[in-house]
Amino acid sequence: MRKYNFSAGPSTLPSEVLQQSAEAILNFNNSGLSLIEISHRSKDFIAVMDEARTLVKKLMKLNDTHEVLFLQGGATLQFAMAPLNLLKTKAAYVDSGNFASASIKEAKKIGNIDVVASSKEDNYTHIPKNYTVPTDVDYLHLTANNTVYGTEIKTFPELHVPIVCDMSSDMLSRDMDFNKFGLIYAGAQKNIGPAGTTLVVVDKTLLGKTGRNLPSYLDYQVHIDKDSMANTPPVFAVYATLMNLKWLEKQGGVAGIEKQNKAKAELLYGEIDRNPLFRGVCVEEDRSLMNVCFFLNDDEKYKTKFDQMWKEAGIVGIGGYRTVGGYRASIYNAMPIEGVQLLVEVMKELERTA
Amino acid sequence: MRKYNFSAGPSTLPSEVLQQSAEAILNFNNSGLSLIEISHRSKDFIAVMDEARTLVKKLMKLNDTHEVLFLQGGATLQFAMAPLNLLKTKAAYVDSGNFASASIKEAKKIGNIDVVASSKEDNYTHIPKNYTVPTDVDYLHLTANNTVYGTEIKTFPELHVPIVCDMSSDMLSRDMDFNKFGLIYAGAQKNIGPAGTTLVVVDKTLLGKTGRNLPSYLDYQVHIDKDSMANTPPVFAVYATLMNLKWLEKQGGVAGIEKQNKAKAELLYGEIDRNPLFRGVCVEEDRSLMNVCFFLNDDEKYKTKFDQMWKEAGIVGIGGYRTVGGYRASIYNAMPIEGVQLLVEVMKELERTA
Repeated sequence: MRKYNFSAGPSTLPSEVLQQSAEAILNFNNSGLSLIEISHRSKDFIAVMDEARTLVKKLMKLNDTHEVLFLQGGATLQFAMAPLNLLKTKAAYVDSGNFASASIKEAKKIGNIDVVASSKEDNYTHIPKNYTVPTDVDYLHLTANNTVYGTEIKTFPELHVPIVCDMSSDMLSRDMDFNKFGLIYAGAQKNIGPAGTTLVVVDKTLLGKTGRNLPSYLDYQVHIDKDSMANTPPVFAVYATLMNLKWLEKQGGVAGIEKQNKAKAELLYGEIDRNPLFRGVCVEEDRSLMNVCFFLNDDEKYKTKFDQMWKEAGIVGIGGYRTVGGYRASIYNAMPIEGVQLLVEVMKELERTA
Repeated sequence: MRKYNFSAGPSTLPSEVLQQSAEAILNFNNSGLSLIEISHRSKDFIAVMDEARTLVKKLMKLNDTHEVLFLQGGATLQFAMAPLNLLKTKAAYVDSGNFASASIKEAKKIGNIDVVASSKEDNYTHIPKNYTVPTDVDYLHLTANNTVYGTEIKTFPELHVPIVCDMSSDMLSRDMDFNKFGLIYAGAQKNIGPAGTTLVVVDKTLLGKTGRNLPSYLDYQVHIDKDSMANTPPVFAVYATLMNLKWLEKQGGVAGIEKQNKAKAELLYGEIDRNPLFRGVCVEEDRSLMNVCFFLNDDEKYKTKFDQMWKEAGIVGIGGYRTVGGYRASIYNAMPIEGVQLLVEVMKELERTA
C-alpha cells in the first residue's frame, strides 16, 4: 500500500514518475541499456538534459536573458555561489528563517552583507516587511518559503537591484513573473524531482562583473557555456526531474498546480482554524502553501493518541522540525488532495473521540 | 537483450545493482514508500549512508585517521576543494593527461602550483616518472588513471609530503595501501556507482591548517562533522553505490576484483598485440587496467567494417575520445569477462575476414 508522505524534503513524487524512473534504470528508451550506465555524452542523454532545461524555460515562461542550469551541491552550495558570482561591493539579505540565516552566514564569508530585516526575534513566525534596501547593493537575497516555520513571501518587492531568491521549497508551485528575478535556485527534492540536483535560473546579463577568477564548478558562466554538461551531470536526478516536469505540464503547468496547491492549503488551514484542538504556528497572512505547521493545543492530553491515529491511517512525515515542535504537513505539488483529506479526517476524528 | 557497454563513464553496472535500485524506487525496504521520496533524516536512509561509508572503510582497509565522504559536484569540484582545504603555501602537480591538466588549471586559481612533471609533449602516452618533489610543498597531486589515453600509475612514490590523488577512473579496482594517501577523490560513475556522487577519502589530521574560512559545502571538516549529511545528500546515487559496494564485497573485495580486472586486461591487450590489424595507444609499462585504448592500423580499409561488426555483436561505447581517436574499451569492475571475450572474438573475426 502506498502511504501519504508529508515529508519536508526529499518528499513525495507522483507514482508515474517513480514508475518511469524505475523502468529507465532497467531499460532506458528500449535501448537494452540502463539510464544510469550510458554515457552522458550519448544523444539519448543529451536529449534528456535539453528537454529538461527547455521544459523549465517553458513552464516558467523565461525570456532569453534567463538560463536554466542543473547543478549539484544543493542550496548550500548556492549560498556560496550566489555571492561568488554576483557580489561585487555589498549585498542585502533578509533573515526570514533558518535557511535564510544559513545563506547569510555563508555570504558573509565572501563579502559585505547588510541584513536589512529579520523576524528572528519573533521565532520567524512572520515574513519581514517594510524594510529599506540600500541603493548601492548588488542584489537583495530573499528566501521565498521557509520550510521549517511554514511562512512564504506572497508579494515580492519591486526594486532597482536584482533579486536573488532561494525557492528551494516553493519553486514551480505558484505562478509569477520569474523574469523579474536575477537569480533563482532550488534544491530539487521538494517540487522539482529527487535529491541530487539543484535547479538554477540565472539572468546571464548579470554575470562576469565581480572580477573573481572562480573555480570552474562554482562559475555559472562555465555551466551556461556547456549547457549544464561542463562535467558529468547527476544523470538519474535530471531524468526523474524531467519526468516530474512532464507530469507538472499535464497538471496545467505552474498556474494549474497553483490552483491545486491553494485548494489543498485551504482545506488543511481551514481545519486547523476550525478544530478547537489545533492552532497554526505562523501569522495568517504569511502562511505557506507548501509547509503547513501547526500545534496541538494540549500535547499532554492528545499527542500520543493523535500520533497513533495518523500513523494507523497510513500517513508519514508530519513531525514538526526539531526547533519548532508540533506538526508540519508538507503538501508539495505531488501530494494529492486525497492525502490532505485523509489528514483532515484524522484531525476531525480526534476531535470527535476526544 | 542487455548489451555490453564499454562506455568510459557513466559506465556499466552489475545487473543486480540495477534491479535493486529500480526496486527501491518503487518500494524501499517494503515501506510502501519510494527511496527517493523519504526523508534523508529517516532512520532507513541514515542506515544506508552509514553502511555505505562503513563498507568503503572496510573495502579500502582504512585507518581511523581516514574519513569517507559522499559529496556532489564530481572530480571537477574536487579540483578546487583539494587546494582550498590543503594548500597553504605551494603544491606540486604531475600533468599526466587531460584531467590532470584540468586539476592544475583549477588549482592555479587558488594557490602557488609547481608542475613537477608532464608527459604532454608525448601526447600523454606514458606516465611521467623520475621527477623531484620539492620539500616545501603541502602535497603532491597525482591522477591515478588517465581515462582518455589509457595510462595508469603502477607504483606510487614514497614521499615526505601527502599525496592527493584523483582516482576517478580506477578507485576500488586494485588493491593498495590507501592509508598512504592524504586525500583520494573519485566521481562515482566508473567503478563506484552511478553519476551523482563523489567519493572522498581524507586524512583528517591534514585539515584545518590553511586559515581559509571556507563556504560550508567546500569544507571537508563540515562534511566529516555531519557524516556526509551536512545538507541533503544525493539519496539515489548513494543507495545505488551501496548496492554496488555489496556486489564488490561478494567479488572478494578489492583484491578479488583486481584479479578479474587483470584477467580482462590481459585478454584484451593480448589480442591487440597479437592481431596484426591493431596496435595499442600507450607505452606497455603504463597501460591502464581500466581503459584499453587502441588503433586500427588501417582505418581506411577496416574502420567501417569493424564498427559494423562490433555494433552487430551487441557492443556499445568503444569509440575513442575525440582528441585521441581510435578505440577505447573501458573494462571497469562491472564489465564481465564475457564482454571482453566477445570484443576479442570480433577482433579475431575481422582478421579472419580481412
